[in-house]
Amino acid sequence: VTKTSLTEQLRSGNRLALARILTQVENDTPTGQLALDELFPFTGKAHLVGITGSPGTGKSSLANQLARLLRQKKDQAPIAILAVDPTSPFSGGALLGDRIRMRDLSGDPGIFIRSMASRGALGGLARTTSALVQVLDAAGFDWILIETVGAGQSEVEVARLAHTTVVVEAPGLGDDIQAIKAGILEIADILVVNKADLAGVENTERALRASLEMAHDENNGNKPVWKPILLRTEATRGIGVDAVLDAILAHRKFLESSGDWKTRERSRLQAELDSLIVQSLYRQWQNSPDAHQYQDLLQKVWAHELSPTHAASQVTGEI
Amino acid sequence: VTKTSLTEQLRSGNRLALARILTQVENDTPTGQLALDELFPFTGKAHLVGITGSPGTGKSSLANQLARLLRQKKDQAPIAILAVDPTSPFSGGALLGDRIRMRDLSGDPGIFIRSMASRGALGGLARTTSALVQVLDAAGFDWILIETVGAGQSEVEVARLAHTTVVVEAPGLGDDIQAIKAGILEIADILVVNKADLAGVENTERALRASLEMAHDENNGNKPVWKPILLRTEATRGIGVDAVLDAILAHRKFLESSGDWKTRERSRLQAELDSLIVQSLYRQWQNSPDAHQYQDLLQKVWAHELSPTHAASQVTGEI
Repeated sequence: VTKTSLTEQLRSGNRLALARILTQVENDTPTGQLALDELFPFTGKAHLVGITGSPGTGKSSLANQLARLLRQKKDQAPIAILAVDPTSPFSGGALLGDRIRMRDLSGDPGIFIRSMASRGALGGLARTTSALVQVLDAAGFDWILIETVGAGQSEVEVARLAHTTVVVEAPGLGDDIQAIKAGILEIADILVVNKADLAGVENTERALRASLEMAHDENNGNKPVWKPILLRTEATRGIGVDAVLDAILAHRKFLESSGDWKTRERSRLQAELDSLIVQSLYRQWQNSPDAHQYQDLLQKVWAHELSPTHAASQVTGEI
Repeated sequence: VTKTSLTEQLRSGNRLALARILTQVENDTPTGQLALDELFPFTGKAHLVGITGSPGTGKSSLANQLARLLRQKKDQAPIAILAVDPTSPFSGGALLGDRIRMRDLSGDPGIFIRSMASRGALGGLARTTSALVQVLDAAGFDWILIETVGAGQSEVEVARLAHTTVVVEAPGLGDDIQAIKAGILEIADILVVNKADLAGVENTERALRASLEMAHDENNGNKPVWKPILLRTEATRGIGVDAVLDAILAHRKFLESSGDWKTRERSRLQAELDSLIVQSLYRQWQNSPDAHQYQDLLQKVWAHELSPTHAASQVTGEI
């Protein structure tokens, strides 16, 4: 099986070929890189939906229910769920928990589920996620749900890949949870209070509404603005999930009519290009004569004789 | 007031000069950069203690209590607390909550407290934190407590700055909290179950102990290895905080006797140098003739005619 035919197999719907290419891409192998290049012309079609939130909010359940409902409402369109678990650097993969929780969906061949874990390279999580999403996109999935844990900076970056970002909260998750909300709210297109049967749901909703008003206070003037939608669900029982799907579809209409769909895709591609440019420059520098001074200058930095800034300028020949 | 004299004022203990330089450094101004270069020879002395954990674990209280106790036990040594709040990109600073919670310490002039928020630049959080820590270090603080929220990848990077990392947990923070623990445990030198008066503390401790064994399973052979210490506290009442401080001091002894103190400092400086090299290379490329093709190639990427990888190689002249 040559590499070319593997991507052809993926394009014709072969799930084994898809799984193999995803593994190559996740491990950043030359085969994976080649596949990404070959598949690139076929990307840019899927609707990417980010589903993010703190631990314990039940976002996996919500993702599962959304996938199921999308299948029904969208003429059995093929759907992929990518569960991103950056918190497991040593397991070599996402934790068993997620896989088990998702198993109830795997009977449906139109829903493809993949877990991934980052091994902690700087900027690696968003980059790997983006690459895997491109493969799924080229494989013809109309909808890709990207599920992320937590609200750290790298999760925010992952969420920025998505066309639509659903932030999931739940009542009663600790007293400084407000701090978490503040950052994540900026990226929320749809805000879901899950586990709405729990005590304190009104308080959570009130706090979120207040924070939302704060986060989206500044208006850009003429440009049409999406006002985040706040909804309640009980995902495990399927309650309220229809409304979340309707909000996602409404957001898609907004993105298309406002031109944001195209803008987001373009920013994403530009960011990817910029990151690859930096990597290419570094590779070239490593093979240049300049790089030979590196060890000497590093020693001076270690001795606190030369500041890192000055050392960097010298070793790259900038001054 | 010239720039030079501002850093001299900082070095002689002027808190206003310190606050001003921190602001310049946080905003990444040329003045801030100059100050960092001038202060670099005076860095490398402080013990950096990272205190990290999920929302609701009470790590702010623990940081406060530790600072108070360190002052008593270490002959009134000057102490800084840097509260890193990456979740607040739009507030332009950490949330009011943290500042209020910490106010009970601000009567002691030997404890300097600073909050910061990252505005979300890639890799920006760890870089800014590192720079602020260097300023505090040069200002003569023997102990710098770096408090971070959450357990995302960028918080892990911030924690890696520290000599000693204290990970704070609390009982009953949701069902998929295990996933969070997995990643953060790898970096824990000391593990604290705070709010030990709450129900479920035994379960939390048991789960942590099991995860710890998993995380630290692989031994490097000859090298002496630090075995993470697991402790219980009720930080708001000051219970168990002495033991945490003792563990921090024991960890410091270990770092010094094993040579890890030096190794960590050196890796940190090398990582900083590498990051500055990349920035310098990018600046130089932007002013090179190669960069002129950028817009054309970007258009082709946007049209899905050319993959980002190929575009990057072309625009940097790598192929």
